[in-house]
Amino acid sequence: MEILKNRIIKDGVVIGDRILKVDSFLNHQLDVGLFNEIGKEFKNRFKNKNISKILTVETSGIGIACIVAQYFGNIPVVFAKKHSGINMDTDNYESNVHSFTKETDYVIKVSKKYINDEDNVLIIDDFLASGSAMSGLIDICKQAGTTIQGVGIVIEKSFQGGRELIEKEGIQLESLAIVEDMKNGQVIFKDEKSKII
Amino acid sequence: MEILKNRIIKDGVVIGDRILKVDSFLNHQLDVGLFNEIGKEFKNRFKNKNISKILTVETSGIGIACIVAQYFGNIPVVFAKKHSGINMDTDNYESNVHSFTKETDYVIKVSKKYINDEDNVLIIDDFLASGSAMSGLIDICKQAGTTIQGVGIVIEKSFQGGRELIEKEGIQLESLAIVEDMKNGQVIFKDEKSKII
Repeated sequence: MEILKNRIIKDGVVIGDRILKVDSFLNHQLDVGLFNEIGKEFKNRFKNKNISKILTVETSGIGIACIVAQYFGNIPVVFAKKHSGINMDTDNYESNVHSFTKETDYVIKVSKKYINDEDNVLIIDDFLASGSAMSGLIDICKQAGTTIQGVGIVIEKSFQGGRELIEKEGIQLESLAIVEDMKNGQVIFKDEKSKII
Repeated sequence: MEILKNRIIKDGVVIGDRILKVDSFLNHQLDVGLFNEIGKEFKNRFKNKNISKILTVETSGIGIACIVAQYFGNIPVVFAKKHSGINMDTDNYESNVHSFTKETDYVIKVSKKYINDEDNVLIIDDFLASGSAMSGLIDICKQAGTTIQGVGIVIEKSFQGGRELIEKEGIQLESLAIVEDMKNGQVIFKDEKSKII
């Protein structure tokens, strides 16, 4: 998706060889116009799928998922919770996730009321790296008997192994920008020359 | 906003005299169609204001803020972070917040890059209760020299004091459903008869 890759080149910041900061448009300040372009693109890539619900995980996936849902007929969005308050249901599907960026383990939870064996979900997230959060979401779908129609990722860092986890499940994975490598402050997209950012 | 009040009556769950659970459409499963109606209503209520940015706080405000932003010309959304990872900037505005639902204190942070004295913000959140999260957002705007053009709340629980905190600042506050009291499983909206839910 050219508009996205150009935005990463323009506004992304590479830190070391693993961190790509895109907090000016994707996960702290949010560019809702760009999110709409992302929604159109996911609709195009999953146009042959029957999708009844979007599943994501807090925090950065939520805004993207809500905009994307509009391109699938305003279907419901459900987000897995990392931080449950006293209002949270106690009857949940749960899965353990390791966060490499926060260097902690945590549990994600989805109320059993909001995901079930009649749902056909599209899982949406901002990043795919090691795939640990995604494995947790897939695990929750399996527990609920939910059909996963696809996984839509805004930025994939393909050198961290997440793609293999999803493809071995036989799930259609669509990433709108695939970063193959990062070094010396440069992003190298898949099948393209390196881009200085 | 009648469509919202009717939805609260239909799908909300009152627990005790302080908790109104609306996780089936507002803060766990998200009704994006309803969020669009909310966006139209906020645009109508703040139509005379020059608003350049929407400010909210993770988690539940984010999806609503993104949809609302579309009705203000796809202006940027910035959300204050409660849980900052290693990717978070270190140069932030910060404010302390007490959460009554999670019974903890926490710090909210906004990078100094994404809020400044040229911004005219509309603050959006799902709930207004004691106003502690809102006070933190207002505090951050003051630190940044940002003009607050208004506060837009989906559900206000008016018996917990948050309105006074905002009105004493001279800020326009618009709440789309104002709950005056909750008891015996009932919600009593402002200026209306009690509704059984």
